[in-house]
Amino acid sequence: MKNMNIKTNQQGILEFSGKSVVELAEKYGTPLYAMDEMMIRNRLKTFNQAMKEAFDEKAEVLYASKACDFLAMYRLIKEENCGVDVVSDGEIFTAYKAGFPMEKAYFHGNNKTDSEIRFAIEREVGTFVVDGEDELETLNQIASEYNIVQKILIRVTPGIDPHTYEAVSTGIVDCKFGSALVTGAAEALTHKALSMDHISLQGFHCHVGSQVFDGEVFMKCADVMFCFIKEISQKFNYECLQLNLGGGYGVPYVEEDPYLDIEQILMRVGAHVKRLCHLYDIKLPQILMEPGRSIVADAGITLYRVGSVKKIPGAKNYVSVDGGMTDNPRYALYRSKYTMRCANRMNEEASLRCSVVGKCCESGDILQENVLLPDTVQRNDIIAVLCTGAYNYSMASNYNRIVRPAVVMISGQDEKVVVQREKFEDLIKNEL
Amino acid sequence: MKNMNIKTNQQGILEFSGKSVVELAEKYGTPLYAMDEMMIRNRLKTFNQAMKEAFDEKAEVLYASKACDFLAMYRLIKEENCGVDVVSDGEIFTAYKAGFPMEKAYFHGNNKTDSEIRFAIEREVGTFVVDGEDELETLNQIASEYNIVQKILIRVTPGIDPHTYEAVSTGIVDCKFGSALVTGAAEALTHKALSMDHISLQGFHCHVGSQVFDGEVFMKCADVMFCFIKEISQKFNYECLQLNLGGGYGVPYVEEDPYLDIEQILMRVGAHVKRLCHLYDIKLPQILMEPGRSIVADAGITLYRVGSVKKIPGAKNYVSVDGGMTDNPRYALYRSKYTMRCANRMNEEASLRCSVVGKCCESGDILQENVLLPDTVQRNDIIAVLCTGAYNYSMASNYNRIVRPAVVMISGQDEKVVVQREKFEDLIKNEL
Repeated sequence: MKNMNIKTNQQGILEFSGKSVVELAEKYGTPLYAMDEMMIRNRLKTFNQAMKEAFDEKAEVLYASKACDFLAMYRLIKEENCGVDVVSDGEIFTAYKAGFPMEKAYFHGNNKTDSEIRFAIEREVGTFVVDGEDELETLNQIASEYNIVQKILIRVTPGIDPHTYEAVSTGIVDCKFGSALVTGAAEALTHKALSMDHISLQGFHCHVGSQVFDGEVFMKCADVMFCFIKEISQKFNYECLQLNLGGGYGVPYVEEDPYLDIEQILMRVGAHVKRLCHLYDIKLPQILMEPGRSIVADAGITLYRVGSVKKIPGAKNYVSVDGGMTDNPRYALYRSKYTMRCANRMNEEASLRCSVVGKCCESGDILQENVLLPDTVQRNDIIAVLCTGAYNYSMASNYNRIVRPAVVMISGQDEKVVVQREKFEDLIKNEL
Repeated sequence: MKNMNIKTNQQGILEFSGKSVVELAEKYGTPLYAMDEMMIRNRLKTFNQAMKEAFDEKAEVLYASKACDFLAMYRLIKEENCGVDVVSDGEIFTAYKAGFPMEKAYFHGNNKTDSEIRFAIEREVGTFVVDGEDELETLNQIASEYNIVQKILIRVTPGIDPHTYEAVSTGIVDCKFGSALVTGAAEALTHKALSMDHISLQGFHCHVGSQVFDGEVFMKCADVMFCFIKEISQKFNYECLQLNLGGGYGVPYVEEDPYLDIEQILMRVGAHVKRLCHLYDIKLPQILMEPGRSIVADAGITLYRVGSVKKIPGAKNYVSVDGGMTDNPRYALYRSKYTMRCANRMNEEASLRCSVVGKCCESGDILQENVLLPDTVQRNDIIAVLCTGAYNYSMASNYNRIVRPAVVMISGQDEKVVVQREKFEDLIKNEL
């Protein structure tokens, strides 16, 4: 893996961010999420700077919280001067509790409830990303009750196939998110928003999908969006102040995955956007982008302890670990690929082809098929799963009443627990 | 649906267990899990009695907790004189806290950690269902430290294809669970267990899969298991005291699904088991069965409020509700079918073909495709999803920082909240 914070030390032990993962596992228990704070900060700095170079000083990074969020993450994002994309009252609550400047929060979601809208307004969330007509009407109504004018973007589905898998393709027309350009829905919604007293339309949002490795997609997206912005500006004499091009930058989960050069891509997209502005004679709006996975995914690993090794003659070999779909449901959901290592046997040949499975009483509780591990792998060995910083902690459940793991953040020599392991008492805290 | 606790009242409102679901939604908020206590109790009574009639007085029902467990559920199971199948320290903790008699708990799982084994022994869990060699050796070692003799069953994979879908097929040989008969692993493990000082082998366990509608499967399973028991008894002069035939009884999620007559099936299986005992000259062991889904699934419904209706010309229609894969991940995981109703428009023709989707910022957050709802469906309508009593509350997550719903238990005229809706503060309770 090209991941720079993984190496093998002289004792044949995997090191993450300069720390022996065997020692981390012993110290904090397993399963354990470990994250590299400096890597996250460096990614944000790089992204932020590249955005400003590619577009202009106004360009902003909004971290897509849902990838991985907890109090310490919002504090970190605040310190790196980025905004956030939040998707529920629970995310707004967490950001607020972390002292995040709420004017830099953009509230997403295809279905914002009345109580969520009120919650967001009361915490002065900067901008709503309005998904459709139902939300727009409700928001205008509730904003009028609060006697405020709420800033919004309209989420547009530009109709671009990001050449990625169905479940994360959100830019095509047949989609639960946004209002389609091609059907006229986006224009109608814009027209409506511009007529509303308690709505201030700042611009538009689009998002073409996840795990996109092709920078072209963002340029095609810009093509479509600037054409739309030009039409809108002419029809409604409206100046678009913000354009949010979404996120979806791919990350390498396995050796074969490409590694994106985000700076280079942003420079290309930036040049293209400036050409479009010139072509259409539009003033460059503030450009926003929403990386989530690409900021945190390979800044995180998960450590498990092996519980059993079952070699079934004529069938598969099974290595069971002490976590599973409860802390990482992505294989169960999407057959997502991950790279796995036996962290205490890094110098041994990985010759045992096996399924690495979780401890849930569920046949679908598989973390990965066709993994190669040393033939000597045995109970109490440590398995490291790489690139689990995104959509693992945030998607974790208590299925089988398994408590959720701790998150330890590593920053140079320092380690700090940013999320404590759940306690049994937490499982019954709301049960009467 | 043949489900007896669902009907439409004179106002065209769906009633569940005699209660207007619109009133339940207003009173307790949405999303809401509602469960019918009497239905669960009646199912357990029926199953219990049918087991005793089919086999003998010693036969026992072990409720498969993972389907749906919380404090009140364990109390209910206790009151109905059933045992439980538990699969983690968290389940053991919950049962223990509920005052469940732990000698009636059977501890399952393909990977029991050292700390779980200690936890179970300290709470005097009656029987371990040992999955393989790693566990057997560890258990014997830890039991010796506590100076106890631990009762166990050995989980055997009988090699039967239950004609069900891959992810829930747990009786075939290539499986993360149990020790295969055909490879000799089960016999070797039996031999080893019989030689151990701190292990008392009570018998065997097998489980052929979930959503099994074919009673034949249990009879084939008995064929294989009694043949094995006979061999073992001859080779090792061992009397098998218990045989656990697992669970997996199917439930009707949609109209087309068959409805199982559990009493009739048990009578057939019972007669077959008695024939086998006679054939092999084996004393009838205590027969155990582990229904989970078939006890609780159709005793539960989920109520959602509609947030948006998006009709995309030339593409699909989307009805977004205020829950989703966070409270019911089964469509996202397994494309599981569910029956849905617009609870406040039961007398209107259901002519709008739509996808019912959740509120998560995830394209895969779909509750069901190709649902028929009234064309008039709109924001604030109530959608009822039937048969969600199993594998919904227990599989729920906080993805997108969405709080988990409340569970309200209905018992005749009475209603009681048995699980309170999660609070925002719960989301950050372990975050530093």
